[in-house]
Amino acid sequence: MRHLPKVLAEHRCFGGMQRFLEHDSHEIGLPMRFSIFLPPQAAIGKVPALMYLAGLTCNEETFMAKAGAQRMAAELGIALIAPDTSPRGAHAPGEAESWDFGVGAGFYLDATEAPWSKHWRMESYLLKELLPLLGECLPLDMQRLGLFGHSMGGHGALTLAQRHPGVFKSLSAFAPICAPMQCRWGQKAFARYLGAEGPRWRAHDATALMLKQPVAPFPKGILIDQGLQDKFLADQLHPELFWAACGAVGQPLSLRRHAGYDHGYHFIQSFVDDHLRHHARALSMGVSANP
Amino acid sequence: MRHLPKVLAEHRCFGGMQRFLEHDSHEIGLPMRFSIFLPPQAAIGKVPALMYLAGLTCNEETFMAKAGAQRMAAELGIALIAPDTSPRGAHAPGEAESWDFGVGAGFYLDATEAPWSKHWRMESYLLKELLPLLGECLPLDMQRLGLFGHSMGGHGALTLAQRHPGVFKSLSAFAPICAPMQCRWGQKAFARYLGAEGPRWRAHDATALMLKQPVAPFPKGILIDQGLQDKFLADQLHPELFWAACGAVGQPLSLRRHAGYDHGYHFIQSFVDDHLRHHARALSMGVSANP
Repeated sequence: MRHLPKVLAEHRCFGGMQRFLEHDSHEIGLPMRFSIFLPPQAAIGKVPALMYLAGLTCNEETFMAKAGAQRMAAELGIALIAPDTSPRGAHAPGEAESWDFGVGAGFYLDATEAPWSKHWRMESYLLKELLPLLGECLPLDMQRLGLFGHSMGGHGALTLAQRHPGVFKSLSAFAPICAPMQCRWGQKAFARYLGAEGPRWRAHDATALMLKQPVAPFPKGILIDQGLQDKFLADQLHPELFWAACGAVGQPLSLRRHAGYDHGYHFIQSFVDDHLRHHARALSMGVSANP
Repeated sequence: MRHLPKVLAEHRCFGGMQRFLEHDSHEIGLPMRFSIFLPPQAAIGKVPALMYLAGLTCNEETFMAKAGAQRMAAELGIALIAPDTSPRGAHAPGEAESWDFGVGAGFYLDATEAPWSKHWRMESYLLKELLPLLGECLPLDMQRLGLFGHSMGGHGALTLAQRHPGVFKSLSAFAPICAPMQCRWGQKAFARYLGAEGPRWRAHDATALMLKQPVAPFPKGILIDQGLQDKFLADQLHPELFWAACGAVGQPLSLRRHAGYDHGYHFIQSFVDDHLRHHARALSMGVSANP
């Protein structure tokens, strides 16, 4: 039986409600926390929703505390959903030895390798458990669901949206890991979560996935913002590879390079309104990911 | 000799720059940290500035990370200054025994009682050291300086603006401690920082100060926002006493009571744009505190 989420805290915000919740996840096998912002419009009917996937070391509070997204979400009438970035409390050996693997670093996939395969099942958790649960419990229009994220969560957004055609109708990212097979963060995580390099890696690499698309999966376009003072840009992010892949399959992509901006939430808050407007345009027009 | 601040971190934000800094304070006798947001307009000339005083347990990062104020500050062309809430590293006996006194709880006054009188000199630090230093180092128009704050920092704003006529040309607060002599937080802090109840207490009580004003010190009005689900409202804040004092001296006050909102930063972010506009109106019109 599915356990309903427990409200840990709630705060009125821009006429809507910011909640932090916890539930026992059967996919993860542990308690999981997430946060949700419901705009004022949710009091009178179903609203579209955006799920935000956070980056390494972050949790379900980071985006809601630091991004300043609720103002525009309340104005546009869009709900915001922010899950945690990994299981917590598994006590898997080595889970907390480094900041870029294990706790706070789930990479939004289902691990196939022991010991990670037992609890590190973020993809199944989000797609098979959290989103269906929220669709049942809350006034969300799950036919108007968008996905975005930052860094590792940008990788999660660009891969999950492609791996689950039709689920997410709009897509954007801040400084995403665009080609995890080509960077240390991705290679380390994929090797330990998924085993030796091969088809499983390619199935979770945004650029490799895009190169295999028969037609553009998001005909209304993908928005990516990237700061040029981002210390991870040169080695870890590779937006140019995703840009080339989108070009190869005719996927419209707005890749905006911003002089002076770095990798953090002062960068994200500077452009988050544009992302919400991007999603609102796609969602309110009923644009389907794979029509 | 005055030591220049050291930049600990800087982040491009809304076309401006968010900086976190540290300097050796001679008033405090210890290193002090503060943060500043310079809007894009500061690149071409002096800009007005608002100093924000944070509440109990907060520090110089809290407002800049959680309030979402930089967007409107960049739009209006106003700098934001956020000092820390107390000395740190003094190792005074008992300084960290409770969350409402000592570290993180300076109450924006100069302590007269040992051991606090040695380092707990937040009023002199802000007025005689930090603001003059910033006026020298940065493109700030110190003739257009506003003051606001939250909770203990709201007390700081309402008292310092009255205690230093003409320095701050505009004033507002979120859920301020309006009558510290009438609440446990204030009584505890005043007794230990200032000694037995008497004239020193009244000199740092916003309501008592207002009752002694010969004329309204802020003829263009003071803005106060208060959430009605604020768990500290009934016992600690007493906005009704400050309201009555303002009425007695003809001080215009917009005291807005918001159903459902609590004491935290989701409340603050919901109304921070209004505060910035309130200050911008007063500052751009050159309204003087004590003309």
